Amino acid sequence: MTNWGSLQLPDGEIALDEQTRAEYGANDYTQEITTKVLPDAVIFASSIADVQATVKFAAANQIAVVPQGAKTSIVNSAAGLAGSVVLNLSRMNKILAIEPENQVAIVQPGVLNGDLDTQARQVGYFYAPDPGSKPISSIGGNIATNAGGMSSLKYGTTKQSVLGLKVVLANGEVVTFGGKTFKNNTAYDLTDLMIGSEGTLGVIVEATVRLLPVPLGQPVTGLATFPTIHELMQAVQAVQASGVNPSMLEILNRVSIEALDEYEGSHLGSHGEQALLVFQIDVAAADALSTVEQVLHTYGATKIDVTEDQQRTSEIIKIRQDIFAAGAQYGRLIVEDVAVPLGQLAKVADKAEELASKYDQRLLLLGHAGDGNLHPDIILEDKDGALPEETQRFIDELLAFVIEVKGTVSAEHGIGSLKNAWVPKQLDASVRILQKQIKQVFDPLGILNPGRKI
Amino acid sequence: MTNWGSLQLPDGEIALDEQTRAEYGANDYTQEITTKVLPDAVIFASSIADVQATVKFAAANQIAVVPQGAKTSIVNSAAGLAGSVVLNLSRMNKILAIEPENQVAIVQPGVLNGDLDTQARQVGYFYAPDPGSKPISSIGGNIATNAGGMSSLKYGTTKQSVLGLKVVLANGEVVTFGGKTFKNNTAYDLTDLMIGSEGTLGVIVEATVRLLPVPLGQPVTGLATFPTIHELMQAVQAVQASGVNPSMLEILNRVSIEALDEYEGSHLGSHGEQALLVFQIDVAAADALSTVEQVLHTYGATKIDVTEDQQRTSEIIKIRQDIFAAGAQYGRLIVEDVAVPLGQLAKVADKAEELASKYDQRLLLLGHAGDGNLHPDIILEDKDGALPEETQRFIDELLAFVIEVKGTVSAEHGIGSLKNAWVPKQLDASVRILQKQIKQVFDPLGILNPGRKI
Repeated sequence: MTNWGSLQLPDGEIALDEQTRAEYGANDYTQEITTKVLPDAVIFASSIADVQATVKFAAANQIAVVPQGAKTSIVNSAAGLAGSVVLNLSRMNKILAIEPENQVAIVQPGVLNGDLDTQARQVGYFYAPDPGSKPISSIGGNIATNAGGMSSLKYGTTKQSVLGLKVVLANGEVVTFGGKTFKNNTAYDLTDLMIGSEGTLGVIVEATVRLLPVPLGQPVTGLATFPTIHELMQAVQAVQASGVNPSMLEILNRVSIEALDEYEGSHLGSHGEQALLVFQIDVAAADALSTVEQVLHTYGATKIDVTEDQQRTSEIIKIRQDIFAAGAQYGRLIVEDVAVPLGQLAKVADKAEELASKYDQRLLLLGHAGDGNLHPDIILEDKDGALPEETQRFIDELLAFVIEVKGTVSAEHGIGSLKNAWVPKQLDASVRILQKQIKQVFDPLGILNPGRKI
Repeated sequence: MTNWGSLQLPDGEIALDEQTRAEYGANDYTQEITTKVLPDAVIFASSIADVQATVKFAAANQIAVVPQGAKTSIVNSAAGLAGSVVLNLSRMNKILAIEPENQVAIVQPGVLNGDLDTQARQVGYFYAPDPGSKPISSIGGNIATNAGGMSSLKYGTTKQSVLGLKVVLANGEVVTFGGKTFKNNTAYDLTDLMIGSEGTLGVIVEATVRLLPVPLGQPVTGLATFPTIHELMQAVQAVQASGVNPSMLEILNRVSIEALDEYEGSHLGSHGEQALLVFQIDVAAADALSTVEQVLHTYGATKIDVTEDQQRTSEIIKIRQDIFAAGAQYGRLIVEDVAVPLGQLAKVADKAEELASKYDQRLLLLGHAGDGNLHPDIILEDKDGALPEETQRFIDELLAFVIEVKGTVSAEHGIGSLKNAWVPKQLDASVRILQKQIKQVFDPLGILNPGRKI
């Protein structure tokens, strides 16, 4: 029996009751398809010292530690493990500094992405990474999974916005990687190594992130309709080749359009529209819009609707933002996340539709297509229970195809435990050995989020 | 005695003669201030198999291997070590593929940066990283040092352009990290870990790099004159905050202006001009230019000269490109490379000028100021010999100050052996231990470029 009484938290709290363990042990977004287990305890850390005390206690008692942010993982990265302690960081939610003169912010890991962005905008800056979970996911979790989003197209994933990290290592020590400079060549880049490591190498307790000035001028936002998803994918590739450098290129298939119309009472698909593009150009460049319109028409766009009006811009972007809720209105969504070489986009979209038809799956095909990043999500009407066999087959064949065309089975959501089985299919054995050795360097006792990521 | 006869190179050549060992053992850009040593052999690799054979032989014989590209290091990263074999990769200089549909190129490590860029532009793309050594440095070396350049301001350092790597490990095995996708979250990011590791973790034998479409429209390029370097630095910071997102913001101090005028017969400084800004805006955005002009005037610009003409654009950019040659006309340049938080730019520039004056050094102060990256270079009239004591003091006090304001002693040139002594002053002891452990994972025998970087 673990003697929890000997764990001294300077500022935080420990919960041992079943209700809290059940609530924080479960991962909201994957609980239906992962085995439910109760962690032994949940720690609510309020300070770096709490994190250090927890990790040291876990090391001394050989207990697994699951770092947890805002509980929005969709690959089971942060749910409790049997016999583990869940280390919840959501109370460490202070923006410690916003420094416009350095174009950086310093934040605790529990700060929500949307909150940081809102604060930054008040001084003329923005925080670029914008995962779909932006209003509800935390910066710490975004860093742990190298989260992307719509703006990755122009501004990169979370990695491109993180300059420095404070990390509690598996021995309880706090270390600092990187800093406030935009370039840094002094050391092996351990900041980047931490990003996307899903809590398996250390616990992120502070981050220095880059803020960008809000671009000059009014963005142009548009909606374009295509006769087929294939043509839309070709259009995306052509826009990416045009030199316009748009800040958003989001695609939606017919199922997505129908789900949105039903959810919002809109009429996006009332004339049988098969595929939709949401795009934005965030610099008021002279020829950018006419170039994009010309490319879209060349690749079969039947209707293009553009605006600089703020109200209408919000409406168009809301289409994309609401797609998960629109899909989930029917039951639940099984969210996939792949990236492929840009030239394979149309082929992979076709394959996804073909497999959906073959296995009779309701496929919500959407994604950050300009990055080659697709979310082929399946709508299931049963809210609970294991994955239907046909759904599993859809996923298995699709991911195998993605690997075949040199894509990746995780683009921006991570591996967690849900995708662990796919890693050996994508990575060489020798790369996996190196990864295990790096894990061993950072976490010799194997207490940090074991079984996830690698 | 090493039995070189037992080293079988399938495609390459070995040179054991003193002349070749002297030529490739020396590092052109730092030889005057590093101890000259002869490596035992120089291998000219023509294939991955050659690299594997060399590394396996070195491992079996416990010989150090120094991977070497185009010999343009300025921190002594790739000169021969006593008892080592120099593994020169310059013959592996093929562009294996340019794939516009995927926006990638696949290259051997010896391909010169400028050659790749030229080839890419023929199909409407460009390779963004543009170190000052662009025409003469290799992609492999650029990756090994995470090279920057003028365009890092908008497009990031080399890291942002590298998607995948083939690497020969210290045991001779070839592994692949990353691939052709723009996002990839499957593994710990070993691609990024390799970038900037200066040949100490493996030998880069192939790279998949991202190409960007040439931006739409004619870039606007400009020259602006300032009464003081301090005001210029404030102007740079203000332009960076304006939301314009320029693609170039390069600064030059009075000594630089004088050197250029003498070298080129130009008249940049004939009215006593103290500080010069070279800038470029590569999207034809409506308000971008007027915004930049307004900001520059606010911060004291006395003259602004802008152009869209290609010939004049080349002339302006040549000013910046020629500055190293202009400085070197007097003897030699001791090149420094630091980055500081953006808000510290003016303070660090002032400090550099103050120290130059204190120690009577001729300071060529230039740099990619929008990135917070300065090159405070010293002109020495003696072409050879050890660093004068006063020059060393200038460097020591300046780097100490850079660390004090939370900057970094290497921004884009690497650490090599020349800056090794500064690493412990900048990094925590615990970070250095982690680095050594990672080195141990990749290179347990310690044969890869020992004594460099860490």
